[in-house]
Amino acid sequence: MVDYDQEAVETRIRQSFARQGAMETLGASLSSVSPGVVEIELNYDRKLTQQHGFLHAGVISAALDTACSYAAYTVTTPEVSLLTIEFKVNLMSPGRGERFLFRGEITKPGSNIIVADGRGYALTDGPAKLIASMTSTMMVIRGREGISG
Amino acid sequence: MVDYDQEAVETRIRQSFARQGAMETLGASLSSVSPGVVEIELNYDRKLTQQHGFLHAGVISAALDTACSYAAYTVTTPEVSLLTIEFKVNLMSPGRGERFLFRGEITKPGSNIIVADGRGYALTDGPAKLIASMTSTMMVIRGREGISG
Amino acid sequence: MVDYDQEAVETRIRQSFARQGAMETLGASLSSVSPGVVEIELNYDRKLTQQHGFLHAGVISAALDTACSYAAYTVTTPEVSLLTIEFKVNLMSPGRGERFLFRGEITKPGSNIIVADGRGYALTDGPAKLIASMTSTMMVIRGREGISG
Amino acid sequence: MVDYDQEAVETRIRQSFARQGAMETLGASLSSVSPGVVEIELNYDRKLTQQHGFLHAGVISAALDTACSYAAYTVTTPEVSLLTIEFKVNLMSPGRGERFLFRGEITKPGSNIIVADGRGYALTDGPAKLIASMTSTMMVIRGREGISG
Repeated sequence: MVDYDQEAVETRIRQSFARQGAMETLGASLSSVSPGVVEIELNYDRKLTQQHGFLHAGVISAALDTACSYAAYTVTTPEVSLLTIEFKVNLMSPGRGERFLFRGEITKPGSNIIVADGRGYALTDGPAKLIASMTSTMMVIRGREGISG
Repeated sequence: MVDYDQEAVETRIRQSFARQGAMETLGASLSSVSPGVVEIELNYDRKLTQQHGFLHAGVISAALDTACSYAAYTVTTPEVSLLTIEFKVNLMSPGRGERFLFRGEITKPGSNIIVADGRGYALTDGPAKLIASMTSTMMVIRGREGISG
Repeated sequence: MVDYDQEAVETRIRQSFARQGAMETLGASLSSVSPGVVEIELNYDRKLTQQHGFLHAGVISAALDTACSYAAYTVTTPEVSLLTIEFKVNLMSPGRGERFLFRGEITKPGSNIIVADGRGYALTDGPAKLIASMTSTMMVIRGREGISG
Repeated sequence: MVDYDQEAVETRIRQSFARQGAMETLGASLSSVSPGVVEIELNYDRKLTQQHGFLHAGVISAALDTACSYAAYTVTTPEVSLLTIEFKVNLMSPGRGERFLFRGEITKPGSNIIVADGRGYALTDGPAKLIASMTSTMMVIRGREGISG
């Protein structure tokens, strides 16, 4: 992390994020990039709900997975790519709120496997409410054609 | 399951599915409902992708979670509701294809906790390709105001 | 937590821990009980290893599950019991070391479902090394005959 | 799998299993090795229990992890080794019974990552009772000194 270049890392991540059709569909934005930690936010929208009108668990997973993946990008070099191998999501409270924050954070960096943890919060009145957590396992990919960023 | 009423179950599930804003956003359709097994399909669309152009892991999770949840609905009575407590997703191959099938199946029914397993497949030329699996844990909810179906 | 009675809680947990045949088999001891956090320690022993001579993932799981469960006991009342519904373990570094510490911590208390996170560390020379993490989901059980503590 | 040599594979796995101190401690035996599927059995013993006298979730995890790992060994070449990166366990029924069977089965082979699923059963009177399931993710390791088999 000696050579951590915040501007280069953030540019790279923002360009990759912009290529994610799903993030645009969810109305998600990348609100913060720092070493080992990335935050994504999105507004409540009826088009993102499950049958009770709460944020769909899949939407929560999409935002947490993206936050965890880009958190991992902050600790890897530009020539490698990352694939999510698996994740686990705990849904702790209904996805009820006006706006949501999803934070991904590196738990264990590595040259082959990176583990990140994420937390999702509903932001409305009062303190942020924890609605979900994720643990995500990613594999570092080198030189696989057609996969970069 | 003695009294399993296919028509009533399928109607109830289709009505609930129709209330899921997220399923409409994904362009997902409920393709099959049978006792303990539900299938959902969706077409590839640029608006559902991650940065490499593959189906986003969150979209895969949304479809698998929904398939697993409705599989659980086929084995519960109409007055109860289900909340997904947690799930784990393994992403086994990139979400590359024209069309995708997601099957949820009950592994362990129960009066308090139901466990389902799901599998996602890419459908293109040749045999269906396994792209993801899910194990999902749901809690049976009785008489909670504002939560039904 | 207003009425948190450290002595009563710790006594209850130590009595329950003493009934766990598996903890004795592993040579594990309960090293710390505080509100929402419980720590367990054990020494390396050849009888706890996998084929490469590292601590077996199942032993790591046993210690983390127990630490997470008793962390949950610190936030429940004595008449209820807890059953672990599921957990996920990430194995981040080989279980190499002389002594190991496993900490379980409540992430989300609840009247029906409690979520805890655990971390396992190898203690040898130098700083503790993170070897594993767990997320555990527990169900609060009331009045089920034959299950207490 | 063209060259699958049952005798060589089984010998290799039995030798590795014999090096697992933890399996001896649990009283576990390798009851079946076939392509992509491995079974382990163990008897109920007070020394393997949690506080209610049921088989400890960590013991269940140890047996399932081992069964899944050796299932993966049946589809890899002898010079590689496997490390479990992570697993998830669902505990579906209390670990009550006289004898237990744990079956691990390959879900997705691969040159870098192998995914296996496992199921644990209590064997007493009547049909086997499903008590637990596992999904396990393993990494294929080549040429790492000191890690083989």
